Amino acid sequence: MAQATTSKEIVILEEESVTLPQGFTAGGLHCGLKRKRLDLGYIVSEVPATAAGVYTTNLFQAAPLLVTQESIAKENKIQAVIVNSANANACTGEQGMKDAYEIQHNFAGELGVEDHLVAVTSTGVIGELLPMEKVNNGIKQILNKENEDVNNFLQAILTTDLAVKQIGVQMNIDGKTVSIGGAAKGSGMIHPNMATMLGFVTTDANIAHEDLSAALKEITNETFNMITVDGDTSTNDMVVVMANGLAGNNQLTKDHPDWELFKSGLKIVSEALAKKIARDGEGATKLIEVKVDGAFSKDAARAVGKSIISSNLVKTAIYGTDANWGRIITAIGYSGVPIEPYAIKVSLGSIPVFENGLPTPFNEEEAKQYLEQENVQILVELNQGDDCATAWGCDLTYDYVKINASYRT
Amino acid sequence: MAQATTSKEIVILEEESVTLPQGFTAGGLHCGLKRKRLDLGYIVSEVPATAAGVYTTNLFQAAPLLVTQESIAKENKIQAVIVNSANANACTGEQGMKDAYEIQHNFAGELGVEDHLVAVTSTGVIGELLPMEKVNNGIKQILNKENEDVNNFLQAILTTDLAVKQIGVQMNIDGKTVSIGGAAKGSGMIHPNMATMLGFVTTDANIAHEDLSAALKEITNETFNMITVDGDTSTNDMVVVMANGLAGNNQLTKDHPDWELFKSGLKIVSEALAKKIARDGEGATKLIEVKVDGAFSKDAARAVGKSIISSNLVKTAIYGTDANWGRIITAIGYSGVPIEPYAIKVSLGSIPVFENGLPTPFNEEEAKQYLEQENVQILVELNQGDDCATAWGCDLTYDYVKINASYRT
Repeated sequence: MAQATTSKEIVILEEESVTLPQGFTAGGLHCGLKRKRLDLGYIVSEVPATAAGVYTTNLFQAAPLLVTQESIAKENKIQAVIVNSANANACTGEQGMKDAYEIQHNFAGELGVEDHLVAVTSTGVIGELLPMEKVNNGIKQILNKENEDVNNFLQAILTTDLAVKQIGVQMNIDGKTVSIGGAAKGSGMIHPNMATMLGFVTTDANIAHEDLSAALKEITNETFNMITVDGDTSTNDMVVVMANGLAGNNQLTKDHPDWELFKSGLKIVSEALAKKIARDGEGATKLIEVKVDGAFSKDAARAVGKSIISSNLVKTAIYGTDANWGRIITAIGYSGVPIEPYAIKVSLGSIPVFENGLPTPFNEEEAKQYLEQENVQILVELNQGDDCATAWGCDLTYDYVKINASYRT
Repeated sequence: MAQATTSKEIVILEEESVTLPQGFTAGGLHCGLKRKRLDLGYIVSEVPATAAGVYTTNLFQAAPLLVTQESIAKENKIQAVIVNSANANACTGEQGMKDAYEIQHNFAGELGVEDHLVAVTSTGVIGELLPMEKVNNGIKQILNKENEDVNNFLQAILTTDLAVKQIGVQMNIDGKTVSIGGAAKGSGMIHPNMATMLGFVTTDANIAHEDLSAALKEITNETFNMITVDGDTSTNDMVVVMANGLAGNNQLTKDHPDWELFKSGLKIVSEALAKKIARDGEGATKLIEVKVDGAFSKDAARAVGKSIISSNLVKTAIYGTDANWGRIITAIGYSGVPIEPYAIKVSLGSIPVFENGLPTPFNEEEAKQYLEQENVQILVELNQGDDCATAWGCDLTYDYVKINASYRT
């Protein structure tokens, strides 16, 4: 499984996931929340792992998020994650909190660990109480050997997703192979600020909690928080990272010579998962990448990128393979960033379409062909400074409407 | 035409428009910007009219907006508006400015008035130069008697609109009948902050410029700026009001006893046009009204209302007649307003669906029937204060995608 890595290189393993790092197992089963598909999953580490999380900014935070934040805060460690799909346990009041604690307690009991070492996450419909009998029955059986398969876990976390989302990387730190694995779900209610998605990252790195936490926040702002599907920020979503130290490297901190290498690995995992979520956006046919360069600040670059990637008009134009740069310019103009209209250059891939406040003549047929690709890039050069950012999203299609006009019922 | 009005009453005339007030004429013709439909229109007042305008907040303001703002600023008066559809004259650089001035100059010449008394407006595709020969030919003929018909004007300003948008009101002030008439266009690229729409309001009231201007700003914030179709704020749009004083009332100012009456009339006109634009949103089948009450400030109420009305997930759920209140709650939660989750009540029409942080049991079939109406109301009670706001929008449908995946080409 583990390819040898040479110093300073990061090996990317597309088919790997949260069980790539040493000491992690994962699995899942069908407990009855969905009609047929798997709906309850877990990740377990052999030993307690240093943990960090980022959580939705929505003021209606769901019960499992509250329980998980409180639990991680106790000693900055968790040993397991239990996740159900199909029901978000959000807007469920006191009973919802009671249910989340019960799930945590029961799974901790199966594992023989303290309750606060279990993180609880949920995703799905808002405002319905969990059918706890089904969930509890599932928890009783989930650690049985036949359910232990990372593919079961990857399936169990999905809702309207069409594809599983996984990635692994390996690097050499202090002569040891350090691995990072990731899995995610999410295809709707996706917008910057920890929107409807769950991200799970595991690593066998030995790493200090506060540095792990800082790296996760920084990288989340550049990856998970830079994707949008529909502009809606959900009540439930979070990214949690577990580092169990089994790789045996010297403890990573900001002062470790390979700190940047580890961060690069974590960023590759986060960015890959974020892009997979954007590409799997409800009804999407394309992944759209918006690169903004020459901004006077990182925040300005991000705001311009998010404004473009969130525009329904840009998203439908790209679905229609229409090089409608006027909609891109419009989205830049209302981003809230004080741009200079006459300094801006916009390109679709390598085709410049707007420069110095004016459209650039371009071959419409060539542009159309470019937009027919599955991966489309919009490049914006603001010419105001040196900061840059990238945002990812997807096109807006008939199927988006179809899926969301009939999701709940 | 003019029904008698009694004191303090406002008579609403659904079939009237910008020529209801005394001394205004309007017309339009086909000059060749569209294939067949009318594309050049005008409003003219017999005498110079006190004028005020509100303009897009998009940083890429189109050439005609710049010319119009500069012209109105000269003496706060205009006597005419010339408008073309199908081409926005936006992102057209120096040539675009030259073209806008040329249109202004040529139409002023036909009228025999000074250039700065003509407002110029455009709507349509961004980034293409106007075919000035066609426009200039149109201007030469547009004042011919056979083109003078307010219905021609109403048609000439449309782009993807399916319906003309007009309204008139009359009231008695100082023993005189004062009329206000309105017309608007807009169905896409519509979002608060003077998004892609043009609004034209005429009145024969005698009114002081600064008070007219203040009233327009205040009322625009409660009407035109509270609608959204797709969240995109365009480069071109504006509302302009012309008051020619021919009603003969004593000059209206804030101190006039009927100031509030006049403002009510102006608000009725603005709100009616705003709602007509929202209802005619690209692909829309329903008008959605979001009423937010009990906010701690007007801004908070507006932010919550706009967050809900802008949510693609709420819009698709209502298209699918799905009482998916979880999406409404989610949109409230990410509005940026520090709401109290456990204080909130949400109703669909008269059907409560969420109260005190929990879903309220309701009859799904009854809710579905309610959502099948053409006019749907979402009521949100924040229970934090006394301020309220209303926002309007439309559902998100297959046809929205269809229209916008192929608009330009």
